[in-house]
Amino acid sequence: MSFASNCLVAQSGGPTSAINSSLSGVIEAALNNPKINTVYGAVNGIKGVLNEEVLNLNDIFSDSENIRTLRTTPSMFLGSCRYKLPTVEANENEYKIIFDFFKKYSIKYFFYIGGNDSMDTVAKLNKYAIDNSYEMQIIGIPKTIDNDLVHTDHTPGFGSAAKFVATSVLEMTHDTFCYNIPSVVIVEIMGRNAGWLTAAAALARNEYSDAPDLIYLPEIPFCTEKFIQDIKNVQKTKKNVVVAVSEGIRDEEGNYISATTAPNDSFGHAQLSGTGKSLESLIKSHMDCKIRSVELNILQRSASHISSLTDITEAALVGQKAVEVATNGVSGKMIAMKRINNAPYEVEFVTVDVSEVANKEKAIPREWINEEGNHVNQQLIDYMKPLIQGEVDITFKNGLPNYLPITHLTKRNQ
Amino acid sequence: MSFASNCLVAQSGGPTSAINSSLSGVIEAALNNPKINTVYGAVNGIKGVLNEEVLNLNDIFSDSENIRTLRTTPSMFLGSCRYKLPTVEANENEYKIIFDFFKKYSIKYFFYIGGNDSMDTVAKLNKYAIDNSYEMQIIGIPKTIDNDLVHTDHTPGFGSAAKFVATSVLEMTHDTFCYNIPSVVIVEIMGRNAGWLTAAAALARNEYSDAPDLIYLPEIPFCTEKFIQDIKNVQKTKKNVVVAVSEGIRDEEGNYISATTAPNDSFGHAQLSGTGKSLESLIKSHMDCKIRSVELNILQRSASHISSLTDITEAALVGQKAVEVATNGVSGKMIAMKRINNAPYEVEFVTVDVSEVANKEKAIPREWINEEGNHVNQQLIDYMKPLIQGEVDITFKNGLPNYLPITHLTKRNQ
Repeated sequence: MSFASNCLVAQSGGPTSAINSSLSGVIEAALNNPKINTVYGAVNGIKGVLNEEVLNLNDIFSDSENIRTLRTTPSMFLGSCRYKLPTVEANENEYKIIFDFFKKYSIKYFFYIGGNDSMDTVAKLNKYAIDNSYEMQIIGIPKTIDNDLVHTDHTPGFGSAAKFVATSVLEMTHDTFCYNIPSVVIVEIMGRNAGWLTAAAALARNEYSDAPDLIYLPEIPFCTEKFIQDIKNVQKTKKNVVVAVSEGIRDEEGNYISATTAPNDSFGHAQLSGTGKSLESLIKSHMDCKIRSVELNILQRSASHISSLTDITEAALVGQKAVEVATNGVSGKMIAMKRINNAPYEVEFVTVDVSEVANKEKAIPREWINEEGNHVNQQLIDYMKPLIQGEVDITFKNGLPNYLPITHLTKRNQ
Repeated sequence: MSFASNCLVAQSGGPTSAINSSLSGVIEAALNNPKINTVYGAVNGIKGVLNEEVLNLNDIFSDSENIRTLRTTPSMFLGSCRYKLPTVEANENEYKIIFDFFKKYSIKYFFYIGGNDSMDTVAKLNKYAIDNSYEMQIIGIPKTIDNDLVHTDHTPGFGSAAKFVATSVLEMTHDTFCYNIPSVVIVEIMGRNAGWLTAAAALARNEYSDAPDLIYLPEIPFCTEKFIQDIKNVQKTKKNVVVAVSEGIRDEEGNYISATTAPNDSFGHAQLSGTGKSLESLIKSHMDCKIRSVELNILQRSASHISSLTDITEAALVGQKAVEVATNGVSGKMIAMKRINNAPYEVEFVTVDVSEVANKEKAIPREWINEEGNHVNQQLIDYMKPLIQGEVDITFKNGLPNYLPITHLTKRNQ
């Protein structure tokens, strides 16, 4: 069977500052593509398909000003979900509901913007479509601040988070050096298993400051004795120590270094918090100096006002590419970026099999981390620097960033 | 006795995003004032005078580009201290060291940029100068993100911190509404005894979102039972609750609501941390929904990239005014701002007796807080809104804000 040509787009997983830019790319390309009639948006990811919560995006984005504002609006305009689609064997009914939805709304193209869990959903739906001879194209659009997707040079959303992290570490460096007393500032950064975002703190180094002096990544087993000795070593030559640490650091046995443990989320990921606070207590019990821990928390994935222009631009292009390949008959692929050149920086947009991306994580190569395992090497800096270049042009209203209203999310229960 | 006309400037207390702009105002006005020869900066506040750590600012700022960059550089270019000058009776020797320094460097004008503790230093030094017939002018320049100085409409530094707080709450609102599940986000904001900065979260409210739904200030005794009931009431009509809470909230007996207690600082202030975490635990034990606490921490006083142009401009004008009045023979005063008009917003710069400002704190008027004590009234919004207007023009280098190097602070121990 065959559907007429409407398209559906949805967002899933954790927010980034660039995921709405990818959405803008999809909408813009779809509105201009003669093969597509109506652009629908499912609210709260695949859950919105299951619950038939859907927006007509042609109406909302007939004003091109809204597309421009969407590009720099934080979080997910369509809302998100953290829902792992069951296997067909476990619950085929959900697949039937989803494909009935596709049929009802004449969806021929489905774009799912998300991380490796979302790519699992894309892979499952694509296989189901093929197995049941549904003629439609399903394309994954990558996003994650964690930069841990395989088969892509980097992920949309990472550059903006990295720019926020590096900017914040630079600003906190100015803050901490204002007192001429021994101090340690620990900055806790997101990243469960991959240390990319934590490593981005290294971009704050400049000609007048070595901060962050130490960087601890989940890729390297964490040793508390070495950690304390590292700090003491730095304090031999300078009073103010700045440490970047991933929320996901673990000891040699694989136990998380965090003060609190919470139940796993629905994907079986451990929910972490308190790594910085835990290390703060550790240092307090071993050293006599001012200690502070700062958890960048959800700011690092939502501070759109300091987004990377490179990131926001690439995110939109990835969305546009998805529409291009889907309408050319491609399905079951994720759009990826391939770095052609580093100086000048240049990427091209390619497709990779979504099944090769789903449920996998890319860690930092060992050779990009220093031998001691407490900082990064120049290769990592060279890789990351292009990704934070350029600033977005945010408009302000009443002194605050003018973001696209999300009334459909904020007012729906009232 | 009389000194020739050099001037000295120093910074003290906690950092703000505008305190360097006040410094720029002093330097610019002093360099252009025929009554002043050399502009010296003491490193680390009055401690730099006691230790004779001093910079020649004529040299550093002969390049006017440096003055422009200083204006938007976070924290304190000259470094800070938290040092309460003893009374003359307790230790006259320190006064002798300070005035010997003034004599040695021919200082006729001393500008001290700081909060109410720093104004105590200004008051003491001014009295000592008068009592000992030193002909010099000592002027206090206000700063604090807390906005708690008396006899001034508001303080330089507050507007920028308020803009960061409101922007962050707005961005976190977009973040939290993306999941269609019951959630509570608690944002912990600085402010020991005055809730001004916490109240600034209210500026994030807009036509599509009521967040923050609840605001808890140190001015109102905190009741945990009422807090839980307030959240449950909000959740009757909406799933995602955003709460702004001051680090300094206390129960009816005056005990801080924070998970940890730390030793008092040298001014006898309790050092607070963990109020948000404490409330997070409290809610977790009473409600079954997703809870997260976010401590804005030192970012709220150092995120210069999102400063308020109104604040940065006023801070520079306050510094310029200080030089003007000092060279006209005024001493023992603090520069203050008087609001002439609210719409259009207009202030004038006046002087107030520094002894009337020292060691006092201005709380939010009760009538600017709602009757229930869990939000603010329109008068407060009307008062604050003008203070966050306008954006600073930050230049970027390699993808990060281009701040003025603080090599004299970062490299001095190497």
